[in-house]
Formats: sequence, C-alpha cells, structure tokens
Amino acid sequence: MRYVVIMAGGAGTRLWPLSRQGTPKQLLPLVNGKSLLRLAFERSLCSVPPEQVLVVTGAAYADAVAADLPELPAANILGEPVGRDSLNAVAWPAAVLHRQDPDAVIAQVSADQVIEPVEVFAECLETAFRVAEHDPGVLVTLGVVPTSPHTGYGYLHRGEAIAGFPGAHAVLDFAEKPARQVAEGYLASGEYWWNSGMFVWRAATLLEQLRLLLPVTHAEIIRLAEHPDLLDEIFPALAKTSIDYGVMEPVAAGSGSAHVAAVALPVQWRDVGGYASLAEILSTDSDGNSISGLSVTIDSADNIVVNSDPGSVIGLIGVAGMVVVRTPEATLVARTEDAERIKELVAAVKQQAGQQFA
Amino acid sequence: MRYVVIMAGGAGTRLWPLSRQGTPKQLLPLVNGKSLLRLAFERSLCSVPPEQVLVVTGAAYADAVAADLPELPAANILGEPVGRDSLNAVAWPAAVLHRQDPDAVIAQVSADQVIEPVEVFAECLETAFRVAEHDPGVLVTLGVVPTSPHTGYGYLHRGEAIAGFPGAHAVLDFAEKPARQVAEGYLASGEYWWNSGMFVWRAATLLEQLRLLLPVTHAEIIRLAEHPDLLDEIFPALAKTSIDYGVMEPVAAGSGSAHVAAVALPVQWRDVGGYASLAEILSTDSDGNSISGLSVTIDSADNIVVNSDPGSVIGLIGVAGMVVVRTPEATLVARTEDAERIKELVAAVKQQAGQQFA
Repeated sequence: MRYVVIMAGGAGTRLWPLSRQGTPKQLLPLVNGKSLLRLAFERSLCSVPPEQVLVVTGAAYADAVAADLPELPAANILGEPVGRDSLNAVAWPAAVLHRQDPDAVIAQVSADQVIEPVEVFAECLETAFRVAEHDPGVLVTLGVVPTSPHTGYGYLHRGEAIAGFPGAHAVLDFAEKPARQVAEGYLASGEYWWNSGMFVWRAATLLEQLRLLLPVTHAEIIRLAEHPDLLDEIFPALAKTSIDYGVMEPVAAGSGSAHVAAVALPVQWRDVGGYASLAEILSTDSDGNSISGLSVTIDSADNIVVNSDPGSVIGLIGVAGMVVVRTPEATLVARTEDAERIKELVAAVKQQAGQQFA
Repeated sequence: MRYVVIMAGGAGTRLWPLSRQGTPKQLLPLVNGKSLLRLAFERSLCSVPPEQVLVVTGAAYADAVAADLPELPAANILGEPVGRDSLNAVAWPAAVLHRQDPDAVIAQVSADQVIEPVEVFAECLETAFRVAEHDPGVLVTLGVVPTSPHTGYGYLHRGEAIAGFPGAHAVLDFAEKPARQVAEGYLASGEYWWNSGMFVWRAATLLEQLRLLLPVTHAEIIRLAEHPDLLDEIFPALAKTSIDYGVMEPVAAGSGSAHVAAVALPVQWRDVGGYASLAEILSTDSDGNSISGLSVTIDSADNIVVNSDPGSVIGLIGVAGMVVVRTPEATLVARTEDAERIKELVAAVKQQAGQQFA
C-alpha cells in the first residue's frame, strides 16, 4: 500500500524569531494563513487518504502538528525525542510501516517548500510511486527541474530515461552545492536537477540498503519498530547522518544492492528556508517592501517586514534593504544581506538574553 | 508662601512609541527607573514641602501622576481636559493659588529635562524666589548658561546685573531658535542664555499682566478658579497661546506693567525631547550603541536601542546609525537622522493602523 511520510523536523533558525525552538518554521502560518506543514499535508491527500499519511516531527511539536492537521490520526505522528538527522528520520517510519505492511511504498516528502502547481506535483508523485512499485531494486528521488543556477541546492546528474515512465531517469551521481560557474554549467547542460530531498521507495528496499551500509543503525531502527516503548532509549543513541550521505550517494556510487532513479519535478519549488525566500511568497507594496502583518512605512524601500505579534504595529522611517520582524517575544532588525548570520545572532541571544528567546 | 508648579503636559510624539497618548514622555521610567516627572518632583522638594507642589497635566494622566508621586496630595494635581498651550497651563494654577493665598510666589518648572547638579538648581531657584519676593513688578525667567551653540532652543538676551542677587540680570529681549552662525555669535558674546521655559513670579503679578494683555483669557481663568466644577466648559474654550508669546515677550518689550529678569542656571540641562537626547542619558556599549532594556547586537554600531517590552529581546545584525525601539504595542525602526520625522510616522500610524497605536 502507498504511504506519504512528511518530514517536519527542523527548528529553522534562519527564520528566527518567527521560528523558534517552540514554534518551528513548518508550523508558522506563512502562506495565506496556512502552514507549510498544512500545505504539504494537502499535497499528500492528492495521493493517499489521511490514514496513510505520517508526520515525523520533534516530540515537542507533536501537539502542534495534531492541532494543525485535525484529519490526521494521532498515531500517525512520530515524535523524535531529539533530532538525529535525516537518515534516522526516514528510516524510522520505513521500519514502522514495513512491520505493519511488508509491501509498503513510501513517498518521503518535506514540508520546507511551497510547491506549485499542486496537480503537477501529484502527477510526478504518481509516476515515482509506479517506478518504485515496478522495480523492487530502486530508490527514487524527486529532481526539481532547475529554473536558475541556484548555488544553495545540491544537484543530481540524471542519466538514461527509464522507458514506460515519462520523466523518470537513472541517476549517475549526486553533486554538492556548486559554485556559481559550475551551477551555470549544470543549468545549460539540461542534465542536472535540484536534489529535492524527497524520495519514493519500498520500505523493504530502503531497509535492505540500510542493513548493508549501516548495519548498526539498521538493527536499532528495527528494534525501535518492534519496541516503540523504547523510543527514548534507542533514538537518542542513534548515530547522526543524512540520508544523502548515508544511503543515496553510496547506492548511486554502486554500494548497496539497489540503484537510484529520479523523476522530474517541473514545478515552482520555493524553499522557505530564510527571509529572502519568505519574501518571495509575501505581498509586495509599491516601494518593493515585502510585508506580512500590520506595519506602516515612510520613505522605506526593499525591506522585508513581518509582524506576527497581534495587537502591535511596526513603523519604519527611512529604512532600506532591511529585514524587520516582530513576534511576541522578539524583534529582529538585520540588513538583508546579513540574514544568513541569524544563526550567529540566535547563539548570542541564547547566551546573553536566555535560552527562552532562542 | 512659595509653591512649585510642575508642567507635565505633552504627549511627546518625538519619543513614539515609548511615549504615546496614554503614556506621555514625562511618566516613562527613562532615568535609572525614575520618570522625568519624578525627578522634577524631587528637585522641587529641595525648595518646598510636597503640599506646596502642584502638577499640571492632561486629565487622562492624573491617575498615573498620582501613582508616580505618592507623596503629592491628590488635590494638587490639575488635569487639563484638553491641551490649551503653555499660557493657560501656567495661568490656571496661578489663579487657583492666588485665590487661596494672595501672596503666592510660584516657581513654574518643567518636567522635560534632566538637570544636574540638583543642588545648583535648588540654589538658583532660591535666588529667583528671592528676586520675585523682593520686587512685586518682576517676572523672573530661568536662563540656562549655554554650553554649545544649540539651534534648537530659544535664547534670552540678558542686560544689567541686579544688585544683591548674584546671577540675576535684567532681560533685554527674547530671541527665537537661531541659525547656526547666529547661535555661535550668541555663545561667544556671553550675553545670551537658553530660554528654559521655567519661571518664578508672584501669582498676583502674572495675573495682572494677563489682565492687561489678554483680558478675555484672564477673565475666564479667574472664573475657572472660582468655579472648578466648570472646568470642562471653560478650559476647552480658552484660546491657545504660549506663555512666551502671550506674556513674556510683550512684557520684555514694554507692554504690560511689569519687567522681566533672568536668573542664571549654570547646570547641565538636557532636554529629553527626542531619541538623540534620550541617547545621551542611556548607557553606551563599546560599539557606540546607546542601550536600554534587553537587546543583543552583532556588528552593529552607533544605534539607539530601547526595549521597554518586558519578556522580549531585540536582536540586531549589521545595523548602524538607527533608532530601534520596542514597546508592548509597537516597534520603531528609523535612521537616526530621520528621528525628527516621527511625528509624520505617528500620523500615518494613526490613519493606517488605528488610533490606539498613536
């Protein structure tokens, strides 16, 4: 049977103070009042009913996830006691689903992006499910057809088309985030797609690769699926590693017993990782200010202004090229080009102002 | 008998959002947790007991004034139903005090400044009281001995010294806020003092000048002192004018029946009218940031950062030369050189965000 597993794990430091330890990015009502998680859930419902959707999140966010997705059965929320990187976050639901359904085929999707149109995404997911159902030896990754020489994403190098599955190709190898010139070459070649971090595979196939490549982790994940009451003992002890580094890249390179395919995702795929990308989904005024919430500006242009503190107003005079964010607990003012340094600020806030603000 | 009347009227738009309609500047705990009003009250107690201090303020702030000054008898707070400029704000208490004490001598002081040292101020006030008690035909103004060619203050041109009262001089005339070059000439001459807006006079003398120069206002103010229950009828109908324009300048020019003297105030006199002057009384970090309240800065210099929203933090990255202020209801971000435009912003906030934020 088909399942969709939504990853909604990270705290999203790059959107501080909107996202904090207590309110991760995926749960913020960023897009017309809906959270990124809610959008990912609604996309999933194009493929499977709510009972076949699972959400992997931090244990601390489980209640917030349940509140955001009332249609989701409570048992379908897997709460990680601590973050143990993406490999464990995908292996755990695979083991859980495999135990109850040995034929489980899983689409592993993220809640970090705004994806449009939803219909195209659903069609691609359908193709990827069919590829994985057809070939028990494949791990399918979804590859976003690039629209720019983006240097912030990893890329995958596609090979031969897979006959009978339009948009599906073999994968030759993966490439890390490239330099600008390299990215331009990738774009011009037409052979490189953005690595979306979304996958479709049979639970059995993934677990078998894990057994071959990372046997200790495999044994612990299986033990966890058999003894869910041992979560707080087993999970924190797992080694941290990413699914790309731990499984996809070795398998693409010939280790393991499977091979990697990719299905093209010709969609608008907007990562809402930081303020620059958040600005793209906000409404813009005539001075180029991207605005969300109540604010008043005078002689201010090209700012990103987000007010998510009900009952308050933000006023700007003569401000340009800045990010200004207000939440009930914090105000951020930063030059847009310094937005990548928010992590640094959050560390300083934690130390100087207190853990509760970070 | 001697009295001190403290003016604590204005809303202080230039310190928005710290000061708002509901929380005027004089009541904010800006100086080591004390308000400017509290500091003015404590200065007054060097001259008279609390029973001889009156506070003129907006009716809406009367409760807040009472809370800030628990030693002050409640009857000594005069609450203006609407602001009617400084002439009426000084004439009203003069009429009230004159009615109960025909020999009342009043020091009319403001709560807009930080004045140091307090002892010097008290000595000057003593001299001014003695000048007014000695000469029933004088209106005494306090003149701050200038320390810079400030273009934001009015000046007074002092004449002959008054024998027997060290620091007291006749006043030749008043001058409006000067251009830079003119102000430099004033400073070099040694003959010009800043017009502090603080006065000492016999209530009878002031009222007599008012009768001669503005007879309608005089009659209404006397009627108000006789019928305090008519406050809401009489006060709003009074013509708006300043004490300088309505009385001091005409009297200095020979109108009226009195003359003007000045007593030197050789003090540090810091007007906390806007953020630039507020910064001077805040603590400064090694990057030249003037800071009050909880904030964390990275690569940020020469900012004025005020956080008066308990339980919140302000974080800055790469910000320079800005004013950043957070209160429970608003956040202000402005370039320091635009701070004079806050009035404009407050008007826009009132219109676009709502009256409650202004």
